Amino acid sequence: MKGWDLTLDLRTPSPTPLFVRIARALEEDIRRGRLPPGAPLPGSRTLAESLGVHRNTVLAAYRELETQGWITTSAARATYVSPSLPDVPARPSAGAPRASMPSQVGFPLPVVPLRRERPEPPRGVLSLASAVPDVRLLPAPILARAYRRALKLSGRRLLDYGEPSGHPRLRAALAGMLSSLRGLAVRADDVMVTRGSQGALDLVARTLLKPGDTVAVEAIGYRPAWHALQLAGAHLVPIEVDGEGLRVDALEALSRRTSVRAVYLTPHHHYPTTVTLSPARRLALLAWARKHRVALIEDDYDHEFHYEGRPILPLASADRDGLVLYVGTLSKVLAPALRLGFLVAPRPFLEHALGVREAMDRQGDTALEAAVAELLEEGEVQRHVRKMRGVYHARRDALVRALERELAGSLTFTPPAGGMAVWAHCAPGVDAGAWVRAGLEAGVAFTSGGDYSFDGRPVPAVRLAFAASKESELTEAVRRMARALSATPRVKRVRA
Amino acid sequence: MKGWDLTLDLRTPSPTPLFVRIARALEEDIRRGRLPPGAPLPGSRTLAESLGVHRNTVLAAYRELETQGWITTSAARATYVSPSLPDVPARPSAGAPRASMPSQVGFPLPVVPLRRERPEPPRGVLSLASAVPDVRLLPAPILARAYRRALKLSGRRLLDYGEPSGHPRLRAALAGMLSSLRGLAVRADDVMVTRGSQGALDLVARTLLKPGDTVAVEAIGYRPAWHALQLAGAHLVPIEVDGEGLRVDALEALSRRTSVRAVYLTPHHHYPTTVTLSPARRLALLAWARKHRVALIEDDYDHEFHYEGRPILPLASADRDGLVLYVGTLSKVLAPALRLGFLVAPRPFLEHALGVREAMDRQGDTALEAAVAELLEEGEVQRHVRKMRGVYHARRDALVRALERELAGSLTFTPPAGGMAVWAHCAPGVDAGAWVRAGLEAGVAFTSGGDYSFDGRPVPAVRLAFAASKESELTEAVRRMARALSATPRVKRVRA
Repeated sequence: MKGWDLTLDLRTPSPTPLFVRIARALEEDIRRGRLPPGAPLPGSRTLAESLGVHRNTVLAAYRELETQGWITTSAARATYVSPSLPDVPARPSAGAPRASMPSQVGFPLPVVPLRRERPEPPRGVLSLASAVPDVRLLPAPILARAYRRALKLSGRRLLDYGEPSGHPRLRAALAGMLSSLRGLAVRADDVMVTRGSQGALDLVARTLLKPGDTVAVEAIGYRPAWHALQLAGAHLVPIEVDGEGLRVDALEALSRRTSVRAVYLTPHHHYPTTVTLSPARRLALLAWARKHRVALIEDDYDHEFHYEGRPILPLASADRDGLVLYVGTLSKVLAPALRLGFLVAPRPFLEHALGVREAMDRQGDTALEAAVAELLEEGEVQRHVRKMRGVYHARRDALVRALERELAGSLTFTPPAGGMAVWAHCAPGVDAGAWVRAGLEAGVAFTSGGDYSFDGRPVPAVRLAFAASKESELTEAVRRMARALSATPRVKRVRA
Repeated sequence: MKGWDLTLDLRTPSPTPLFVRIARALEEDIRRGRLPPGAPLPGSRTLAESLGVHRNTVLAAYRELETQGWITTSAARATYVSPSLPDVPARPSAGAPRASMPSQVGFPLPVVPLRRERPEPPRGVLSLASAVPDVRLLPAPILARAYRRALKLSGRRLLDYGEPSGHPRLRAALAGMLSSLRGLAVRADDVMVTRGSQGALDLVARTLLKPGDTVAVEAIGYRPAWHALQLAGAHLVPIEVDGEGLRVDALEALSRRTSVRAVYLTPHHHYPTTVTLSPARRLALLAWARKHRVALIEDDYDHEFHYEGRPILPLASADRDGLVLYVGTLSKVLAPALRLGFLVAPRPFLEHALGVREAMDRQGDTALEAAVAELLEEGEVQRHVRKMRGVYHARRDALVRALERELAGSLTFTPPAGGMAVWAHCAPGVDAGAWVRAGLEAGVAFTSGGDYSFDGRPVPAVRLAFAASKESELTEAVRRMARALSATPRVKRVRA
């Protein structure tokens, strides 16, 4: 092109491939208008010579630009700047574009941000900090294949707007699973697919609560659930948990003082202590909730992982009065990042929840939902659960053995009947918080009881998650814990 | 097995495959304890004979049961009920399991449910009701491939818990796109990935608002955004939109009466009228917001689809004071069901938003985010946008031609410079609501102005979405509209 010359310094070394640098230089000239729409470009041979590069490099650059729509090739193989430009930068309107993001906020920010969760431990640290599944063992190719098949078979329908309650196939598959394995006589229409159990808790909170409503929670307990409830305006009241689970007598006392809207609890394996709510407490809780018309938010987050005998049926399976809002998840079964949870609730409640869900994010990822439905229908999920239950069972035993070997004098615990973590009480004189800090230095991450307390006060216990670590990793992690403990000053325990 | 006999009627026809029926019958007997753990099963040949089926059918049933863990095969190829049973139903605890879901709710329900969105029109009806992309044209195999590749390359990391702000690669790719095409000088850390634009609006509302805060909204306008704001407790004040967009003078009047926390607006193509906010109004709006420290929630939901000249730069690109919370989406570009939107905001605001996001649903779907990041990095998304812009441009023109041909006397409109729908005013005497109802009878779905009004009052206009329909479908849809109109009684329009 007459009068046009590509300015490009190719001598300065750069990690960017040559053809990309040439393409960007041309693009820049098109953007600036130095090369106007419709202008012819030099032949690849000519440009290659003038730049001192191989002709293939220029051809690659041209292909790149053509793909992006900047240039076009005529039937006679001549190359032009596209007459109608593709993603040209939008034109400035009133107010020139700024050079960087403003660092200040121009309006008042809310006062109290929620406390963020702990960051991931650094590389090389063995983590017993988080009761997550071992995603290394997930058959990812099977998931990828199901996803591809779902898109292929009914891709168009799956990509368009879908139902806020979730893909009907997944709801049906979940209903089948819940009714055959958990004693919940539900159908697809009783189930709503949510974004993980956190999404289900958030949805329940927003559907159920108005600001100021009193919600009783297990304390110690599961902080992310508290956050969801607080975000919906709940006033939380901590209720003690003992060896039989939530203290229902404390709920009774509370309801004499104030009107209780809901109780949030983890009856199967209490989070974080893994205690199971006793039969007597279950009956008392249901009777109390019926009498006071209180909603029970039952979080059955790791139902599948029970190692001693059969899992206990959920509270929801015994609820004849529409009291229980039952929350579960596939995150612990498959993978946290899939964000697939579910809510089972009386239909009038679900009707309300659907309206809320539409205002939140409208619907889930339908294609993923269809893929996972297929994995449930074909028994792949069940197979994986079965395998993982065996793996986790062995890991629990390995952790228990290592703890008994290395830390018998410093920790007391009951091997948990289920779940993904051991809850262990510290012997007098052991400062759990200091131990956790020393542990990070020694290359092992775990949590102390204070992380689960309602008011942030220390609790002389540690929680050791075993599901995501191999047996050899667990053994080494406990060794590091022992090393860390010997580096921790002993304290005189003051009874609270 | 002695004394055991499989009761199974195989004569009744059933859509379920034979081997599945046999497997289920056996499973049922194991569940009921008729076949206890460790019990031997008859040989496949024996069982096949007694049931009168082919031996392969029994072998398939046994394989199914073995896969599910119900039975096990010894080294000598004998078959037994598994000694440790897999997903056996959980054992009932206190309270017998109920037979069906309770139909009542045992606690008071909230009073006002949100209005649900319109259901999908029935099959056979041509729909101009919803401004959605044409997912039939999305290269679904490319998406499936990217998803598989993402899982393969870094599956383990992608399946574990990730960052609530979104996958770093996707944030970087979005930042690149926003800074090269929309004049937003942002980096990855200024961008948060959300669950569609609805998820971004909800997140903004929950982070920004406390119950009772006043938020000004365009009226007529986008109802789902109003719902998200109301869900966070906002008191909404409708502000008129005219041919230049939002009336900033009305905002000025409002702020003399009360303190305004935020304004929600769609300045690029006003929803639903597609009007673009004029340069003078932009300047006035930014100045007003700066003076009163009001947050501007800018929803740039279909930035890419501008047909006359270049798109207009967003308000956010001219914001030097940290006033604008900028919301966008890939739903209109790729597919609604992917639920990938984004929020660009000053970092102190994003810090707050991250805490809220963790309490909502913790994070997005990391594997999908990585897959779409790859599609952006490789220019696939850009290529698709470019193609769709051409397709939608042609469809807009086809719809405009059909309307001019068939409905010239009944509708007046300006062909929209961008967006995915035509907004047309009804001639006097045309009852838009009755026309919509008659349209459904005639096999065409579209919406009337009343669907977008703040108070539900009728607005004498119709909105005709063209992006998801082929040109032939658009022509036929307009023919049906004309037929429906002739069946609609003319009304004497009463001026409001």
